[in-house]
Amino acid sequence: MEDILIKINAFREERDWRQYHNPKDLSISISLEAAELLENFQWKTSEEVLSGDMENVKEEIADVLIYSLMLASDLNLDVKEIIQEKLHKNCLKYPVSSSKGSNKKYTEL
Amino acid sequence: MEDILIKINAFREERDWRQYHNPKDLSISISLEAAELLENFQWKTSEEVLSGDMENVKEEIADVLIYSLMLASDLNLDVKEIIQEKLHKNCLKYPVSSSKGSNKKYTEL
Amino acid sequence: MEDILIKINAFREERDWRQYHNPKDLSISISLEAAELLENFQWKTSEEVLSGDMENVKEEIADVLIYSLMLASDLNLDVKEIIQEKLHKNCLKYPVSSSKGSNKKYTEL
Amino acid sequence: MEDILIKINAFREERDWRQYHNPKDLSISISLEAAELLENFQWKTSEEVLSGDMENVKEEIADVLIYSLMLASDLNLDVKEIIQEKLHKNCLKYPVSSSKGSNKKYTEL
Repeated sequence: MEDILIKINAFREERDWRQYHNPKDLSISISLEAAELLENFQWKTSEEVLSGDMENVKEEIADVLIYSLMLASDLNLDVKEIIQEKLHKNCLKYPVSSSKGSNKKYTEL
Repeated sequence: MEDILIKINAFREERDWRQYHNPKDLSISISLEAAELLENFQWKTSEEVLSGDMENVKEEIADVLIYSLMLASDLNLDVKEIIQEKLHKNCLKYPVSSSKGSNKKYTEL
Repeated sequence: MEDILIKINAFREERDWRQYHNPKDLSISISLEAAELLENFQWKTSEEVLSGDMENVKEEIADVLIYSLMLASDLNLDVKEIIQEKLHKNCLKYPVSSSKGSNKKYTEL
Repeated sequence: MEDILIKINAFREERDWRQYHNPKDLSISISLEAAELLENFQWKTSEEVLSGDMENVKEEIADVLIYSLMLASDLNLDVKEIIQEKLHKNCLKYPVSSSKGSNKKYTEL
């Protein structure tokens, strides 16, 4: 992802946008893009969406990722590392034995 | 990111969770994790958050990324490719000449 | 709603919380409570949720309303008035003739 | 609010939209409208927003309220009652003595 991150950071630097990109507003932006993604599914089933034009779905996933990578970069976080650490934590929170086939939260297991 | 994606998919397969992971619920999940990230900044400035414990911020960014990668994977989307395409589109939407140093939306430029 | 608003404002004044309640953080709070409401429906159908314990659903709707009423109050907006104005606008955006029985957005009608 | 609720319900019935208004999609809609409200504050301070055109802010608060009232109505919840119950619960969660002037969550108090 190194090369992608370089392009993402170049995009905002060329526009002198770093001044707006504080962690609070980047977190707001991730939420807004996630909502724009979700809007594709409003009043619809997954099947209805999958059978239609997926262009906007694709773009909004990209936007969520772009802002998340910007925030991780600004906080000097290694994306691979934090994902692996979180997966490890989730493995402990959701042991296969008790969570297999269940949609319950860990607090209910 | 190939190796990370393999781990992410293994995590949900071991738990037999694919049955819940339709695109609509995955999009909901991205929104929920984005909100949990944003909760760290509620009533606070970026500076106040940065000077405190960043552990939860780190974990919630990871959760947003994990669900986004799951959704991209289920839709057979190449993450690098969709980010590059979106960056290209954003370059056209926000030309350096008119957007430099501005926090206006492209509809206002 | 006048009497409810008095109670809501008394609650935050007793705690000296007005200092945190700027419109940006109140808007963040509405988003966070909306996500907590939505979390009840993650990985579930409406029917599954309706057949379970609705206590948290009830509380999160209340939280969304409480923060929305706070924000409206701080902006000197009359809640009834802005709802009526928005309904009127929606009537023009979604004429009965073209929108009846359709889940399309007004941009697609 | 009785008369407002009658108008809100008439609006969706005239359009035959009840079929889409299951609690899960209404909760999604509340989240989406909350994000559209929050979008007004992206990259801006509260002061910058307050000094500009507040029309969209007003409309998005109304949308959050409209969907919340629809959901409450569909679940046969009395809006005033659930707000009062939640305020009462919040009073116990945040005693004046320990929470006054503090932006800490009840789990940290």
